[in-house]
Amino acid sequence: MKIAVLGTGVVGQTLAAKLSELEHEVMIGCRNTTEVLARNKPDNFGRPPFKDWLAKYEDIKLGTFGVAAELGELIINATNGMGTMEALKLAGEKNLSNKIILDVSNPLDFSKGFPPSLFVCNTDSLAEQIQREYPDAKVVKSLNTMNAYVITNPSVVPGDHNVFVNGNDESAKAKVKELLNSFGWKNENIIDMGDIKTARGTEMYVFFWAMLYGTFQTGNFNIKIMK
Amino acid sequence: MKIAVLGTGVVGQTLAAKLSELEHEVMIGCRNTTEVLARNKPDNFGRPPFKDWLAKYEDIKLGTFGVAAELGELIINATNGMGTMEALKLAGEKNLSNKIILDVSNPLDFSKGFPPSLFVCNTDSLAEQIQREYPDAKVVKSLNTMNAYVITNPSVVPGDHNVFVNGNDESAKAKVKELLNSFGWKNENIIDMGDIKTARGTEMYVFFWAMLYGTFQTGNFNIKIMK
Repeated sequence: MKIAVLGTGVVGQTLAAKLSELEHEVMIGCRNTTEVLARNKPDNFGRPPFKDWLAKYEDIKLGTFGVAAELGELIINATNGMGTMEALKLAGEKNLSNKIILDVSNPLDFSKGFPPSLFVCNTDSLAEQIQREYPDAKVVKSLNTMNAYVITNPSVVPGDHNVFVNGNDESAKAKVKELLNSFGWKNENIIDMGDIKTARGTEMYVFFWAMLYGTFQTGNFNIKIMK
Repeated sequence: MKIAVLGTGVVGQTLAAKLSELEHEVMIGCRNTTEVLARNKPDNFGRPPFKDWLAKYEDIKLGTFGVAAELGELIINATNGMGTMEALKLAGEKNLSNKIILDVSNPLDFSKGFPPSLFVCNTDSLAEQIQREYPDAKVVKSLNTMNAYVITNPSVVPGDHNVFVNGNDESAKAKVKELLNSFGWKNENIIDMGDIKTARGTEMYVFFWAMLYGTFQTGNFNIKIMK
C-alpha cells in the first residue's frame, strides 16, 4: 500500500522503517524537505540527523506534507501533537478526503518541562479535533499509548499486552487492525474502544504513561487489561 | 487501628466492611447522620438504603465527618470527589493534622452524563489540592484506579495486576502499603510512583478507566504493567 507518514521524529522514522520493511511504498511528509535534509546535528534526544537516518533506507521517500498526503492511500499522523493541525492543513484537505488517517500523535506539551501537560483533554481530544476538521476523512486513533519501539515490535515488551483502537468508521478500524497485525499485534490484544470520542481516554492515559516513564526511567513498557 | 472512612457511598461501605472484617475500629463519616439514616429508598445504583446496609455491621459506627476524623488515626477519603474539599473542611483541620489521609477519591464530574469529565486534571490533581490545603497531613493517593470490589479483594480480577501509590511521605506510604497487603495486594503488585504530584497520572488514568468501563460494560477489570 502507498503510505504517507507525516512527521520526521522517532515515531515517524520507526513507523516508516517498519512499513518499508513490510514492503509498503512509504513517503515521509514534512514541512520543508530542504530544511529537514540540511539538519546536520543530532536531535534533542541525541539521535543522528534525519538525512543520515534516511540514507539507510533507499526505498523511503521524503516529500512535503502535501506531496506525501497526495501519494498516500493511508495517512499516518506521526507529527508532534502541537504541530498536528498545521501539518494536516499543509497536507491539504483534498489529499485527506476519504482516506484513513491513522492518528498516533499525542497532545503533549513539554514546553514547561516534565511533567508535560495535555493541550487538549477531558472534554475533547486531538483525534476528535482532526475528525471535526476533516469530516470526509476516516480518523482512527491507535498506537499512541506506547513508545515507537513497542508500536512497531510489541515483543519488545514480553508477554501479552494491549493496543487500543478508536474511531467512527468500522472498515477503517478493520484496515488499521490489519496493519497492527502486520506489526505483530495479535487480534486478541487489540481492543476496539468504540467511536472517536473514546480517544479522549487513550490520550489522557498518555499522561499516566508519562508519569510511569518518570517512575521507571524507561519507555519500554505497556499495559495489559486483566479481567 | 482506629480508621475513619469519610463517605457513605459504595466505596466507603465496601472499605468500611473490609476494614471491620480485618478487626479495625471503623467509623464512617458523613455530613449529617440524621439525614443519612433517614434515607429509605434505594440509591441511584439500586443499592439498599444506607441504614439497611449499616444494620448488617454492628461494629461499624456512623458519625459526622468531624467526629469520625477525630477518632481516626488513619483517615480514608472515600467521598465523591466533587464533595471532597467540603467534607475535609467539615472534618476539621485539627482532626487531620499529622494523620495519614488515604485519598481514594476521583475528581469525576458526571453532571453532564457519560463520559464524565475531571474537574481538576492535567496541571493539578485533587490529591495535590488536599495536600496543599492540609500541609500537616500526610496525603497518600491510592486505590482510585479500580472499583470498590477490586480495591478490597484484588482476586475479583484473576491474575496479577497493579495498584499505585503516590505521596510525599515515605512512612505514610509504607503504612498504606501494609493496609493494601491486608486487602490481598501483593508487594510486587504495588507500584510507588513517587511524590503526590504523580497522582495527576492515576487521576487522569481514571478517565481512561471510565471509557473502558463503557466499552466492557463492567468495572471488574484492572491493568497490569508489562515490562
